[in-house]
Parts: sequence; C-alpha cells; structure tokens
Amino acid sequence: MVIGKVINRVISTRKYDTLQGYKLLVIEPYNGENKEWFVAADTIGAGEGELVLVSFGSAVQHALHQHAPIDAVVVGIVDQAPDGL
Amino acid sequence: MVIGKVINRVISTRKYDTLQGYKLLVIEPYNGENKEWFVAADTIGAGEGELVLVSFGSAVQHALHQHAPIDAVVVGIVDQAPDGL
Amino acid sequence: MVIGKVINRVISTRKYDTLQGYKLLVIEPYNGENKEWFVAADTIGAGEGELVLVSFGSAVQHALHQHAPIDAVVVGIVDQAPDGL
Amino acid sequence: MVIGKVINRVISTRKYDTLQGYKLLVIEPYNGENKEWFVAADTIGAGEGELVLVSFGSAVQHALHQHAPIDAVVVGIVDQAPDGL
Amino acid sequence: MVIGKVINRVISTRKYDTLQGYKLLVIEPYNGENKEWFVAADTIGAGEGELVLVSFGSAVQHALHQHAPIDAVVVGIVDQAPDGL
Repeated sequence: MVIGKVINRVISTRKYDTLQGYKLLVIEPYNGENKEWFVAADTIGAGEGELVLVSFGSAVQHALHQHAPIDAVVVGIVDQAPDGL
Repeated sequence: MVIGKVINRVISTRKYDTLQGYKLLVIEPYNGENKEWFVAADTIGAGEGELVLVSFGSAVQHALHQHAPIDAVVVGIVDQAPDGL
Repeated sequence: MVIGKVINRVISTRKYDTLQGYKLLVIEPYNGENKEWFVAADTIGAGEGELVLVSFGSAVQHALHQHAPIDAVVVGIVDQAPDGL
Repeated sequence: MVIGKVINRVISTRKYDTLQGYKLLVIEPYNGENKEWFVAADTIGAGEGELVLVSFGSAVQHALHQHAPIDAVVVGIVDQAPDGL
Repeated sequence: MVIGKVINRVISTRKYDTLQGYKLLVIEPYNGENKEWFVAADTIGAGEGELVLVSFGSAVQHALHQHAPIDAVVVGIVDQAPDGL
C-alpha cells in the first residue's frame, strides 16, 4: 500500500455502470520524488487534504460491494504521517 | 486509475479472437513527466482528443462482456481535467 | 497493453512443464525511452521484426489453452505503427 | 518479492473493516537506488529494524486469514542480508 | 517475463508456512540499466550463476504445488543469452 494526500476529485458523468456511486479521488503520493497523482475510488469517506492509505490491483475487489473495473481504492485514513517520514 | 488523452487508434487485423469487437485506443498519460503512451480497450465510446479514466490489471475483466487477454480499459470520460492539475 | 517489436527468441530447454509448446519471444518496447526488452509467450504466430500488441498480468491466462506461469503474451500483430507515433 | 527494512508503523483508526487486526508496517527497500518506503501488512510479527521479505499483488491473499484489500504483506524475516549485497 | 542471473540465496527461517520448501533465489536482471535484484522462488532447481526466466504476479500460482504468498518464480533455465543481447 502507499500513503497519499487527497488533492482533488474527478467528475466522470459517462462512466462504466459499476463505477456509479464511488467518489473518484485524486491522490498525490505522500513520499518519494515521484509526485505523479493518480485516481482511487473512495470507500471510507475521505476528504480533501486528508492523508489516506491506498491499495492497488486485485486486492481492490475486496473493498467493493460488487465487482467493478477499479484498480485503486482508499482503505484507510492515516491518523498522522509516520513520525520522521 | 489514471487519466489520459486518446491520441490515436491501433489496428490489429490478426489478433486473439476475444479481442474482436474492441476499439484499441492509444492513450497518453495526462499528468506526470512520463508521457509514454499505451494501448487500452474502449468500453465507453471514447473519441480522439477526449480525456478518459483508465483502469489496469485484473479489474479490467469486470468491464468486459467476456474474459479476454486485455490489461487496460477505458472506464470513463472525464468531464474536465481536475482544476489546477 | 503495449506495442513492441519482436527482436529475438529465448530457448529454454529446462522449463516448467506448462510452458512447453509456447514460443518465447524477446520484445523491445516500440515507444518510450525505456527500451528494456522483456519476454512474452506467443499465441499468434508472430515473427521476428513484426510489431505486436502485448498484454500483461492475470489477463494473460485468457489467451492460454491451459493455466501456466506466463505473465506476458502477444495478443495481436499491429497492422502498422499508429501514424505520427 | 523484495527485501526491506521495517522503519515505522502506520496508525489508521478509520479503515476498511477487514484491515482490522493487521499491524501496518512502513518498509524501506533494502537494495536499489529507489528508497521510497511503502506500507505492508504484517503476518509474521516483524519488529522495527528487522529485514523482511515482502510479497505484492494477488499473492498476498494467500497469507491472510480472510480476503482483505491489502496489496503488500510481510512473509518472512530474513536471517541476514544476502552476503555481499 | 524477464531474464535474470541467480546471484545469491535468501535464508528466512521465520517465514509464512506455505513458503516452506521453496529455495528463495536472489536474481539480478540480465538486461536494462536497472540492476536492482529481487527475490524469486525456485521451482526448477536453478543454481547460482545460471540465467533464468522469471514470471511475476498472479501467474506464479500456476507453478506452485499449493497457493502461497509468492509473487515471483523461476520458470525456466535459459539455454543461452539471446544472441546479440
């Protein structure tokens, strides 16, 4: 998993039906030089500015109420950035 | 998921049978320094120049009407680039 | 998926049994700075010098006649490089 | 798999329910220039400072007592760094 | 798949039970600038110094006698480096 910061949302009116109902969050990686943001579905109610834990790949399906073509999902809000990092 | 721009199409007459019927779109990543384009199957009817949401890996199978050796799929048209990004 | 060029073959006499029967092709990515070649199984009859469409990950199993520890597979011959790319 | 060093823990009170019970470890890759740390669930009882073996992707589910949206897991404590590396 | 050279072994006495019985090999990528070694399970009896074919991800499970949290596996010994590469 990686820790990232919620910096925005993506609005996609025309999308695959099973994506309906998921907030699509723009996440910027918290650590590392590569600050390339990506999009993850929200299952926790994360808000802009919050530090979140994101999981990728097939594991994502275990956080969805039905199978959907989603490859990244927010699975937790990080209480605080690991100290010193 | 990532956001990308549809910049072209790939024509592949000789291809694995379950790829038949899918438009194969050339997608350039919208953000980040790495502008390396890749190929994704279209399930939404995305056109050239549109900003799209792309999903990768095993999740892709949940956007196909039957299993196929496809590892990237367009799952949404982005209404507009997330502001400020 | 990515587009690559078939530049060679790999001969592996001692290999896992379910890999038997697959030609193992050396593929060089067609676009991008990273020209690091990789190995993909052939299911289409691609020849050296041809431009091919390659799929990765779990999707690969949907192009094999039986499950095998193969993580990259050629799924199409590209008619011609997408113009201008 | 990769070898990494446990350098911290992540506390996430608000998280997806099936993540409950797993210690979330911050792991720094042991080798390579890219020292970007990541988060992995612990199934072995690894402690801070220990060298661990980490597995990623769908294989992770085979180390969990129930399916969960976890994409990286500690699967071993490394007795000692491979000599000369 | 990638071709790599077996350069060492990893000893992990305390590990997840289904990893028992697998030799854990340290593999250095044969080609490309990134010589970052990784760890793969051996199913072929590969020895130090040998060039091997390595598969990653969910495909790995198809080379194991039972499911295990292993994400990279040696699936072949390469007879000789593809000429000219």
